Amino acid sequence: MIDLTHGIAPTNVLQGALVLANTLPYTPEGVHLAVVDPGVGSGRKPLALRGGDGRLYVGPDNGLLLVAAERLGGVEAAVELAESAYRLEPVARTFHGRDIFAPAAAHLALGLELEALGPPVPAAELVRLELPAPRLGPSRIRATVVYVDRFGNVRLNVRPSHLAAAGMADASALHIATLGQEADAPRISTYGSVGVGQYGVLVDAWNWIAIIRYEANAAADLGVQSGDVLWLTAAG
Amino acid sequence: MIDLTHGIAPTNVLQGALVLANTLPYTPEGVHLAVVDPGVGSGRKPLALRGGDGRLYVGPDNGLLLVAAERLGGVEAAVELAESAYRLEPVARTFHGRDIFAPAAAHLALGLELEALGPPVPAAELVRLELPAPRLGPSRIRATVVYVDRFGNVRLNVRPSHLAAAGMADASALHIATLGQEADAPRISTYGSVGVGQYGVLVDAWNWIAIIRYEANAAADLGVQSGDVLWLTAAG
Amino acid sequence: MIDLTHGIAPTNVLQGALVLANTLPYTPEGVHLAVVDPGVGSGRKPLALRGGDGRLYVGPDNGLLLVAAERLGGVEAAVELAESAYRLEPVARTFHGRDIFAPAAAHLALGLELEALGPPVPAAELVRLELPAPRLGPSRIRATVVYVDRFGNVRLNVRPSHLAAAGMADASALHIATLGQEADAPRISTYGSVGVGQYGVLVDAWNWIAIIRYEANAAADLGVQSGDVLWLTAAG
Repeated sequence: MIDLTHGIAPTNVLQGALVLANTLPYTPEGVHLAVVDPGVGSGRKPLALRGGDGRLYVGPDNGLLLVAAERLGGVEAAVELAESAYRLEPVARTFHGRDIFAPAAAHLALGLELEALGPPVPAAELVRLELPAPRLGPSRIRATVVYVDRFGNVRLNVRPSHLAAAGMADASALHIATLGQEADAPRISTYGSVGVGQYGVLVDAWNWIAIIRYEANAAADLGVQSGDVLWLTAAG
Repeated sequence: MIDLTHGIAPTNVLQGALVLANTLPYTPEGVHLAVVDPGVGSGRKPLALRGGDGRLYVGPDNGLLLVAAERLGGVEAAVELAESAYRLEPVARTFHGRDIFAPAAAHLALGLELEALGPPVPAAELVRLELPAPRLGPSRIRATVVYVDRFGNVRLNVRPSHLAAAGMADASALHIATLGQEADAPRISTYGSVGVGQYGVLVDAWNWIAIIRYEANAAADLGVQSGDVLWLTAAG
Repeated sequence: MIDLTHGIAPTNVLQGALVLANTLPYTPEGVHLAVVDPGVGSGRKPLALRGGDGRLYVGPDNGLLLVAAERLGGVEAAVELAESAYRLEPVARTFHGRDIFAPAAAHLALGLELEALGPPVPAAELVRLELPAPRLGPSRIRATVVYVDRFGNVRLNVRPSHLAAAGMADASALHIATLGQEADAPRISTYGSVGVGQYGVLVDAWNWIAIIRYEANAAADLGVQSGDVLWLTAAG
């Protein structure tokens, strides 16, 4: 059993989906149980998926699993976790992790066929997360904070290709404006390329743009959190 | 080895006891080591217990272990961890987890008899936690915050049966008053039954009453923490 | 696989080094992977070490590993993790934990010889952390906060021998002055020797001086964090 993380921010399904998709390529194939589930007990289906590469996924039908599954070979089969024999009855409406998801994952790990867990769900009906798209203007990008990591680094919905499309690929520094703060940040390739407490913009290990402050918390200082909008312009 | 949690709030023995008691029914039998121990090094005894169902418990004699043990078959035997051969000597007065509890748990897991760890302690002498009782009036309950979970949900010392006894079973909403804040909250059965940022009152997965805010932190907004008092009245 | 901690404060290499050195004497020998690495991707070398007792260490050349290795038998061999065959290429400049350190640790655990990972590094060239020294005056010590633990206890760079050298060994209480706060704290041997919310000064389980508040957060109340300076004088 490998505990990938308990560090997803409460209810941040998108962060959970991206961390799962970023991490699984580096783990053995197996049964991947993931729960970030603010809609627990409501209409959303409890799911198990089998990927094209043989990986099995268990979790809520809120998009959490699909980013990873689609990057790693696609969804070969999906079922709704409806079979009472593999749930802990009576199921608490506020804790499917305990009563539905963990039992299903355990049964799969013991060799149960996915199809035994419940009726099939067509792949086209699975809930899909929408990663907010950045809005590009001339030398200007309206970006969204996808999540803030444990170091306070601000992870954006912006790729290096977006910077290029906005004509900002060659800017040696970016101007960052949030609703309440402003800062200039040089483009850097490692955290330590700037002094302690100074801002930088780098490409993270999954090829996304992140705003950092060396040995300090960028998100706290900029006053932003997951879902907030900010503006990037060329500054150098 | 299964790490049940490292998320108990510092020194909150009651939270630790309840989380342990709520969790063990879903784990295999084994040696259960638990440490929330503000009294480390003082007079409180270091303990090992054997439950009626064969489970073994190791931890401080401050009530932490007893809620679980009594729910799961009762205490069959208890000993004080006094035998020097199974401690790391010299024992640091501020870290019995390292020098007394973990070694005892490891020896038990290797098959050592409980009785070898030290002299017996009569079950009647074990320290018992008192869960604060809610005070019930007509359509009014004085409740205590037992703990705040990682999502900011406010877990109360109130059962659905208390709401019934106070004549509030049929109220479709409750009024919540803390020392500094007030809020109305509908009775709901899932987190997502209210809008983002709105309050709700639900029965949690262990049949206790909790105050939540959907995708938000109820405790921070109400300004309450573990041990605080609040008042519930019928509002709907 | 044993997860020693994920609780080191971001970028606090010194805290990581001390926690590692304090913990390893109580763990089995093995491959010890540690990453607190604000300089990732810059000039600092990625390292693997073999200790005199057979332990293997993997991590950045920023002093993180050396405190432990030198306490436990010294460094017998050190190599730079330069061999491409044992890295995940292309290596991300911001995540050597994933692309260099974890793969090296896994290969060592599978039996690879340390020397296969890259060229030797002379022990004298390894980066060494400097633990800030307390400044001693008559009945007065200028101390540095080495780190704040999860309970808010303030861990100082002060040993009982420093108190003796400053003529304060017999003081029954100490006066603590930070840049903004003052407090008196009795010398105690267990947390519970003072009342709830009261300060105390104790010798921790590794023979260092720590400032605590019983069932409360000393660091938050004193307004100090890692790296801050405070002054201790005799008060009793």
